[in-house]
This record gives sequence, C-alpha cells and structure tokens, in this order.
Amino acid sequence: MAQAKSDRTTFFLEDLQVGQRFASASHTVDEAQIKRFAAEYDPQPFHLDPEAAKATLFGGLVASGWHTMAITMKLLVESGLPLAGGIIGTGGEISWPKPTQPGDTLTVVSEIEEVTPSRSRPDRGRIRVRNETRNQHGEIVQILIAKLIVPTRSTAAVGFALPQSRVAVADPSEP
Amino acid sequence: MAQAKSDRTTFFLEDLQVGQRFASASHTVDEAQIKRFAAEYDPQPFHLDPEAAKATLFGGLVASGWHTMAITMKLLVESGLPLAGGIIGTGGEISWPKPTQPGDTLTVVSEIEEVTPSRSRPDRGRIRVRNETRNQHGEIVQILIAKLIVPTRSTAAVGFALPQSRVAVADPSEP
Repeated sequence: MAQAKSDRTTFFLEDLQVGQRFASASHTVDEAQIKRFAAEYDPQPFHLDPEAAKATLFGGLVASGWHTMAITMKLLVESGLPLAGGIIGTGGEISWPKPTQPGDTLTVVSEIEEVTPSRSRPDRGRIRVRNETRNQHGEIVQILIAKLIVPTRSTAAVGFALPQSRVAVADPSEP
Repeated sequence: MAQAKSDRTTFFLEDLQVGQRFASASHTVDEAQIKRFAAEYDPQPFHLDPEAAKATLFGGLVASGWHTMAITMKLLVESGLPLAGGIIGTGGEISWPKPTQPGDTLTVVSEIEEVTPSRSRPDRGRIRVRNETRNQHGEIVQILIAKLIVPTRSTAAVGFALPQSRVAVADPSEP
C-alpha cells in the first residue's frame, strides 16, 4: 500500500478548500473480523456472540462502534484522504446513526468543511473534515467530524517534521 | 473476564448521578501492540516505524489515537464503567491532548456529567460521561465525552433487550 500511496497526489493546506470531496475504496466486514476486534477491545456479548446478541438492544451481532471507526481510519489513510504529512488528528466528534453488521461493505466520503491557516506557524494549518461512513445500501453508519493538522507547501523547506513541533499537538486550541 | 464481570455491581439509570466517578484497571502499551494496531487500522509511518517516526511531527513512535481509544474502551468494558446492559454509545466527542507512547500505562477515570431519563421510553435513559485516559505520569492522553444509553430497573420486566428497541439506536436525538 505504501507504494501505491506514494503515487497519489497529496494535498497541502493551500490545495484544500471548503466543499472539496474525497471518496475512499471499500472494506467488507465479516463476522470473524467483528469478533476479533471485540475480543481485544470491546468484549461485550452483542459484538462477540451472535446467539447472545439476539437478546440485546441490537437484536443480533453488530460491530463495535470503535471497530467501524478503525476501519474508517484505515480507508481514509489508504485511499480516502490524501493529505501531505498524513492524517494527524487532534480530535473530533463521532456518532453512529446505525450499527455496522456482518457482511456490510463500508466506504467513506469526506468533505472539507473548514480550512484555517495557523496564525503563529506558517508551516501548517488546521482543517475540519466531515467523514460519512456508509454501508452497501448507502446508509450512514458513522459520522466523524475530524479536526486535522495539515502542512503548508513551505513545510518541506522549514521542517514541519521536526520534533520541536510536537508542542502544537499538545495544544488543540492553536494549530 | 466475563466471570469476573458478573460479580461486579452494575448500575442502572436510577443508580447514576451527576458527579459520580469510576476508575478503571490499567493497561500497558508496548511498541509491538502499537505497530500491530497501526498495521491493520492506521498504517502511517509515525505509528509503524520508530526510525521513520523521528522525522515526523511526533519525533518518535506514537500510538494511533484510535488505538488509545480502543484500549480506553477495553478498560471501560472490563473494569471502568459497570453499567447494566453494557456500554452502548450513540456517539461522543474525542480529543488527544498528547499522544500515547510505547511503554505508557493507561488508566481511565470516568465522571457522570448528565443523566436524562427518556421521555417516551420508560425502560431507558441517556447519560453523558467524561472519560479521561491518563498515562503513568498522570498526563491526559485522551478525553472522551461519551453519550450512552442505560436501561432503567424496570427493564428486566419489560425487555430492554428486545430487537424492536433497535430503532432507538438509530435516532440519537431521543434515547
């Protein structure tokens, strides 16, 4: 995948504008994946055991919301959001209008909602991106409004990548 | 773990009040765990390769924020938030004030911020919970404000668990 990625056009802050949209590849989730994620990170009956899940709020086995999120991130990184510098988030808002079920094929559509250059750091800025994760029926299973840090084109020259830049990650109030 | 869990006191909606706090057990994150999660769900250099990570914004290998979130969920399910009916979320807000690093030992402190009985469904209500994930130095690596659905004590009688209740999960506006 790293090879494939390096062939993609990547977007710096200057290349992004409100309303721009990106679509990811797809990922099909099966029961084994759901159980494996749940066993390690969300061990509850409705994510682990199809029989036990019938007697719960969900009426059957469903993926952990955090599994839907993890698959969404994989799709964004590998194909959905081709940002220069990678996908570096400081936080966001998440909701699950309906659960992911075994057999669902997920894709992510991302739309840039805000582009904000940093006042103090010319090498970067912040964007807000709405990411809708949809199943094969077009139903939205997750909405993630993500706050991301994106380098400017000047970055290669001044070193966006330097360790001293880390303090910015620790201060979500100013990108 | 299921055995251990069944011995814990679990909290119904009526048992919860604003200001109530819960603390989880701990989980130590090592480099192998960070790389394994990243390889599957967040394959970026700063989560996969300690050498390549030095030349990035983070200055070294760090865990994916979604890995920190997944570990947080595991801690909440296994020890942190003993809710009757399990931990069923409709969404929330997340932020990462600083990254999780290899060797960090994480714990979660949860505080109930809001308890709202459902107007239309006597078998359930909604709570808002602030969950701070801290490392061994007491530094906050993640804040998750979670919106959860919690059954009332009447539930066992009327069947919180019935499949027809699923519609409530699809309508985040009304628990």
